[in-house]
Amino acid sequence: MKKLRVGILGFGTVGRGTYQILTENHRLILERTGVDIEVIRIFNRRPKEGLPEKLFTDNASDIISAEDIDLVVEVLGGLEPATTYMLESLKHGKHVVTANKAAVAASFKLLEETAMDNKVQFLFEASVGGGIPVLTAIRNPLQGNAFLEVKGILNGTTNYILTKMAEEGASYENALKGAQEKGFAEADPTADVEGIDAANKLTILMALLFDRYVKPEDIPREGITKVSPEDISKAKAVGKTIKLIAKAALKDGEMSFSVKPEAIENDHPLAGVKNEFNAVYVTGDMVDELMFYGRGAGALPTGSAVVGDIIAVAKSI
Amino acid sequence: MKKLRVGILGFGTVGRGTYQILTENHRLILERTGVDIEVIRIFNRRPKEGLPEKLFTDNASDIISAEDIDLVVEVLGGLEPATTYMLESLKHGKHVVTANKAAVAASFKLLEETAMDNKVQFLFEASVGGGIPVLTAIRNPLQGNAFLEVKGILNGTTNYILTKMAEEGASYENALKGAQEKGFAEADPTADVEGIDAANKLTILMALLFDRYVKPEDIPREGITKVSPEDISKAKAVGKTIKLIAKAALKDGEMSFSVKPEAIENDHPLAGVKNEFNAVYVTGDMVDELMFYGRGAGALPTGSAVVGDIIAVAKSI
Repeated sequence: MKKLRVGILGFGTVGRGTYQILTENHRLILERTGVDIEVIRIFNRRPKEGLPEKLFTDNASDIISAEDIDLVVEVLGGLEPATTYMLESLKHGKHVVTANKAAVAASFKLLEETAMDNKVQFLFEASVGGGIPVLTAIRNPLQGNAFLEVKGILNGTTNYILTKMAEEGASYENALKGAQEKGFAEADPTADVEGIDAANKLTILMALLFDRYVKPEDIPREGITKVSPEDISKAKAVGKTIKLIAKAALKDGEMSFSVKPEAIENDHPLAGVKNEFNAVYVTGDMVDELMFYGRGAGALPTGSAVVGDIIAVAKSI
Repeated sequence: MKKLRVGILGFGTVGRGTYQILTENHRLILERTGVDIEVIRIFNRRPKEGLPEKLFTDNASDIISAEDIDLVVEVLGGLEPATTYMLESLKHGKHVVTANKAAVAASFKLLEETAMDNKVQFLFEASVGGGIPVLTAIRNPLQGNAFLEVKGILNGTTNYILTKMAEEGASYENALKGAQEKGFAEADPTADVEGIDAANKLTILMALLFDRYVKPEDIPREGITKVSPEDISKAKAVGKTIKLIAKAALKDGEMSFSVKPEAIENDHPLAGVKNEFNAVYVTGDMVDELMFYGRGAGALPTGSAVVGDIIAVAKSI
């Protein structure tokens, strides 16, 4: 039986979700793929209660350069040491799967090239839209299309806040507070509400859709902190809904791109994307309009995307 | 340079769309895949004006058993001779890509087994949801999930009719007439309006999601011919929209499945799927809710899915 030995760097929300899926659905995945995918080591400061202590290491090298690891899952988040760990893993001939949008967006080309040079796979489905398999769709079944446009609701926190403002007439401040209480927004919500998170994801989408790399910091960006209940009422009065839209288009060889609040016609499929859900609306020259909708965050949805990438590697070995 | 030589059986709407995409986006696909995908022969009663006469043959064997064909695209539609042609092509060691939902649904196991026995690929993304890459998503990035439920708007004709009835208060008869005038419904609309087409697609979805084969004729089925403007008004009054829903669920090892008009809550993502659009709403044990939305028919959207399958084969050789 073929075997794929996995090491996980980081054991926060996504790391735990990934481990749970690979454990609970181990037999199902084995039946479907014919590959025995086993997590053999986890890098975390300390072992996790309830799991075998020998599974854990506090030394990342035990995964990055270990001879018995075939694939490294990077779910530490943040730029460093995540980026260095991924590059080192690739150079050691390991496939890398990550959910880290900031690191992928910042070092897209270097990571892709390092994977290619070392003849291993570098996959990051979970970095955009959480559990929604939109990157795989773009990279595979839609490859017959020249892509024209993408519009995404790529951040669940801001979509939750805007939904509460629209449906309950809440102020931005109260909606943010509610989101924090429900665990949909962090104590410091800057990366979400200022559109930084969405810009990282748009960088990744543009690279795959249009083969153009635009640094996240070069994307014109406006967050949702200035959206007022009046803006929302005015939009509603003319049959529109305000959403934080990350968009890019390619026309006559010219790219345009931005992250900003926009009033979307209520009969557009993106207008109905509510609460913490995400959606990516893509237009191709042949397939025309498509939309992919689902949970953009959370341990198991994001873990589902990580596991999907692991399975893609498993099938290819 | 690697080459993939394609033969097309049938040159109706989908055949022409497939040919157009492979021709117009030939260079793009070559750059992306590294494979030169060329249509070298088309089976059709007569050559098509404007295309080289030598491309055409009126003898299907020139494709099915030709030594110079690597992949056969079957877009004749209908059960026979399409099924026989696909089986013969597989036995001759050719990969087969089809958009033919009726044939795939009727002979799913035989076609899959014949492909496996002959170590070739059998792909049919275009058979469900036209251009929407939902089958590829189920077969690949979502394989870490045990699937719980699927609900689909799988037939554009009936969705167009129901949308017109809801938005314009039209009777079923008038909405059908409008759909026929716009080319969204055939002169004999039976397969669409009686839910037969949707049942074929549900059979395919169930086979991939739940590894269960249920014949289309064994799916309890009710079409839209008895939906009245009153039914639609009543649903509207309680915040619902009537859609023709093809659904299946697996609970405690028991499958349930049906095709019938259902009143969907307006805040469910399927309720906003209007006109001729299709959508597939899938629930996995890990990823939770997902929806895939797009054009379920048409030369280029359906051709996009056919070409996506051809590219999948090209990448694997």
